[in-house]
Amino acid sequence: MSDKPSHQDQSVSNWWKTDIIEMKPGIIKYRGHAIEDLIGKISFPQMIWLMTRGTLPSDKQAALLEAALVAAVDHGPQAPSIAITRMAATCGVGLNSAMASGLNVLGDVHGGAGEQAVELYHEIKSKLDEGQTLENATKETVDNFIKTKGKYLPGFGHRFHPVDPRAPRLLSLVKEAAKEDTVSGIFADIAEAVETDIKRRKGKKIPLNIDGATAVIYAELGFDPPLARGIFCLSRSVGLLAHAWEQTQQGGRNKGPMPKDYLWTYTGPTE
Amino acid sequence: MSDKPSHQDQSVSNWWKTDIIEMKPGIIKYRGHAIEDLIGKISFPQMIWLMTRGTLPSDKQAALLEAALVAAVDHGPQAPSIAITRMAATCGVGLNSAMASGLNVLGDVHGGAGEQAVELYHEIKSKLDEGQTLENATKETVDNFIKTKGKYLPGFGHRFHPVDPRAPRLLSLVKEAAKEDTVSGIFADIAEAVETDIKRRKGKKIPLNIDGATAVIYAELGFDPPLARGIFCLSRSVGLLAHAWEQTQQGGRNKGPMPKDYLWTYTGPTE
Amino acid sequence: MSDKPSHQDQSVSNWWKTDIIEMKPGIIKYRGHAIEDLIGKISFPQMIWLMTRGTLPSDKQAALLEAALVAAVDHGPQAPSIAITRMAATCGVGLNSAMASGLNVLGDVHGGAGEQAVELYHEIKSKLDEGQTLENATKETVDNFIKTKGKYLPGFGHRFHPVDPRAPRLLSLVKEAAKEDTVSGIFADIAEAVETDIKRRKGKKIPLNIDGATAVIYAELGFDPPLARGIFCLSRSVGLLAHAWEQTQQGGRNKGPMPKDYLWTYTGPTE
Amino acid sequence: MSDKPSHQDQSVSNWWKTDIIEMKPGIIKYRGHAIEDLIGKISFPQMIWLMTRGTLPSDKQAALLEAALVAAVDHGPQAPSIAITRMAATCGVGLNSAMASGLNVLGDVHGGAGEQAVELYHEIKSKLDEGQTLENATKETVDNFIKTKGKYLPGFGHRFHPVDPRAPRLLSLVKEAAKEDTVSGIFADIAEAVETDIKRRKGKKIPLNIDGATAVIYAELGFDPPLARGIFCLSRSVGLLAHAWEQTQQGGRNKGPMPKDYLWTYTGPTE
Repeated sequence: MSDKPSHQDQSVSNWWKTDIIEMKPGIIKYRGHAIEDLIGKISFPQMIWLMTRGTLPSDKQAALLEAALVAAVDHGPQAPSIAITRMAATCGVGLNSAMASGLNVLGDVHGGAGEQAVELYHEIKSKLDEGQTLENATKETVDNFIKTKGKYLPGFGHRFHPVDPRAPRLLSLVKEAAKEDTVSGIFADIAEAVETDIKRRKGKKIPLNIDGATAVIYAELGFDPPLARGIFCLSRSVGLLAHAWEQTQQGGRNKGPMPKDYLWTYTGPTE
Repeated sequence: MSDKPSHQDQSVSNWWKTDIIEMKPGIIKYRGHAIEDLIGKISFPQMIWLMTRGTLPSDKQAALLEAALVAAVDHGPQAPSIAITRMAATCGVGLNSAMASGLNVLGDVHGGAGEQAVELYHEIKSKLDEGQTLENATKETVDNFIKTKGKYLPGFGHRFHPVDPRAPRLLSLVKEAAKEDTVSGIFADIAEAVETDIKRRKGKKIPLNIDGATAVIYAELGFDPPLARGIFCLSRSVGLLAHAWEQTQQGGRNKGPMPKDYLWTYTGPTE
Repeated sequence: MSDKPSHQDQSVSNWWKTDIIEMKPGIIKYRGHAIEDLIGKISFPQMIWLMTRGTLPSDKQAALLEAALVAAVDHGPQAPSIAITRMAATCGVGLNSAMASGLNVLGDVHGGAGEQAVELYHEIKSKLDEGQTLENATKETVDNFIKTKGKYLPGFGHRFHPVDPRAPRLLSLVKEAAKEDTVSGIFADIAEAVETDIKRRKGKKIPLNIDGATAVIYAELGFDPPLARGIFCLSRSVGLLAHAWEQTQQGGRNKGPMPKDYLWTYTGPTE
Repeated sequence: MSDKPSHQDQSVSNWWKTDIIEMKPGIIKYRGHAIEDLIGKISFPQMIWLMTRGTLPSDKQAALLEAALVAAVDHGPQAPSIAITRMAATCGVGLNSAMASGLNVLGDVHGGAGEQAVELYHEIKSKLDEGQTLENATKETVDNFIKTKGKYLPGFGHRFHPVDPRAPRLLSLVKEAAKEDTVSGIFADIAEAVETDIKRRKGKKIPLNIDGATAVIYAELGFDPPLARGIFCLSRSVGLLAHAWEQTQQGGRNKGPMPKDYLWTYTGPTE
């Protein structure tokens, strides 16, 4: 295939426009960088950053993103994404499709808390920028959230873990990065202010969880809120692959959710 | 939630068995490692290795895996996976679902060449282990492949690129790693022997492509063939996310494959 | 497998509760009806109604639902759902996965107009029930819609068809059914009132389209708004299957969106 | 949009070729039939036939197809497709995506038995056409199947039902249709011959199941084997929708496979 000949209809080429990738025969460039100059030179997290944002991060920025990517890969077979992928792997589809059925469910509820937490932090941040105190900005934002969206703050509290072991570790990395001026640290302060505000309201601590902690990282690094979900998808895909592969090796056909000798409870009409 | 009480039906817990993740309240361990000891300490490629294989790779092994992950993230909107994800992003579903529709199609044809190339290399390797020469082992294996599966060898040749710019770069990294004894280098030799054998048959060079080159890396690092596809899925997911996000920002509703004023060609019956 | 033994943990069986299906060895009942009493006796649209709503419709109600199911099966390869499924069918996945990648994108934009139109009609209907005139109820509801959700009314107008040939046909069936008291006909009146109201605003007719017309049927038959999307999914799945199968027979590998010798337009940075 | 202007690049229009649908502004034709002549006149099963095969079936042929469509809509939440869709419905994605994650897993194992049974019947049929007796043709084909593909014959036997209540009902409908010359009945004979042959081998009856019985119908009606899976996908999608919708109404967030206080069994290394 040669370069685009002049007789081609330009409206057709223009139907697909992208800043991300340029190709000619023998040449592949991502965001202006020849692929052979990236392979073996930048890390996978740096590539994720380059592809989604168009620039290359510093090593320290990439290290913080990497910590978030490492932290969220798996939460076991009680997570619907993981269970779905394992069940799919016994139904006669490839690893790609088993992963896709699981990835697909990282929706507003299962995969959206990080995105929603970044939005919450941004709202507080914009009030700070307008001159409010952290305490007031947080109180006002949380009031508004509870009023319009409900009592569960995204990024705080966990059904299973009294303290989510991933969150304090991630937050300490953000604080280290803030000391070194890799990030501002303001979103770590905001997350802690939300935690304090919830404690004031409920009389007990509802600690930051994995979604709230990775959201601090995404916000510090300047990722738009939807990319918080998107990057979580990349991270969780690792767990999906690991579980799909383990299930494939375990074997089994048409794995259901519970042992085969259990039936569901029928609650409908009898004739 | 407390630990499992003794009255629970063990057959239910046993329905989901995994070597990958252990959880207790406040504790998450992957493959025996507490999550807080992994975050900020291992790289994302090391985590991919740990999750899929159960062990931690050396830094140099991880670097080679990282090169493969970096290399395959995108091939532009003519690739069905990328086009599908961009179209999906205009249909009113989240980034997770847009990515899932694209990931789903990395099947035997679109995502399977790497897996098939690893299998091909393994077959040659097993003949070497039985004492055949590289030339003979390769000839015999390629003969058999062509006879049973067809004339296109997985991992060689490219519709668009006379030389795929990713392949020589990846192969040079494998050779460097072999010099340092990170890997044996035998699968690089095998890939080159296949290239030579194809040239002998066709009278022209059909060079190693991205799938053939990443397959060398996966084989050198000891990944089972299906994981070649699985890891490609992780890599390509980065491109899926980047394109879904760019398309979201570009806007558009119900993006079709071609400019709107083009119609398909109807070839069916007329009344 | 025998009936549930008494020693089973009831909380496990109760985890999956359903009114839809009851099973014992040798017995399958849907909504209280033994399967062998349904096969060969009820129509497929009646089964769709029974499964989603729990009751059996009359033949005339089922006929109206059937008309909606028949009407929406396909809109050709410029529709992203159809194009995605055809592309998927060339990537080495089964018909089920090819269909799934397409079905997945029938989201708020591509598959949601019917659901949104039912909601719009319901809002007008509730104002009628409060005693407003049809004209006023419509004007107020449309005002509110435009103010809060934008100027495109779901179910009206078509990018390609000056008059969508499916809509008048469907509407005439609703009117016939209203004459026979199968349905009330009120939602047909409401849809026409919206059409009239839009004409008043824009100075030209923006006619009812397939989504607006099927929404009339769903509303007349008492389907909840989300089921409008759900039933559209069942209808369009027929087109997905037909196109996946035709593409499979046509062959091709990794079908991209446009002819192979067209490249996209790169709009990003140059080095 | 007007008709295709002469200056358009014909190679672009030709990239998407289809016998299925023809469109012009205001005109939609499926397989040569104007859509307004189909709506309200043909049944949904007739439309499924028309779209996948290009012709319109007789009412009696359509009735037999309809019986197969009605029979396979659901097998409860122990089926991975149903469980996956219900879990997905609690994760914050629309009904379309919840259905897609379930549909996606109707792969070779979960959705392929009907397709494989049609292939098995065809193989026997071709031996009959060559003059073998039914008994010999069956014995030889089953021998070959067991030798090359394993001991489980697709379409026979059921883990849960001693006799699958759907199968005898479907088979009796085929026999009625054969009496009326709607179909030949040969594939019903073949299925019974396989049942007899299995009994001879195993010393006990392994009766025809839903997949084997619907396969008889698809074979009698002349559907290609892959369409057996495709049409099963259409049928099961009804169950997916019903369960997704019921789960949505039941509520719940991130529904896992088992009660929340059960954990999986960890079988991996301890530090």
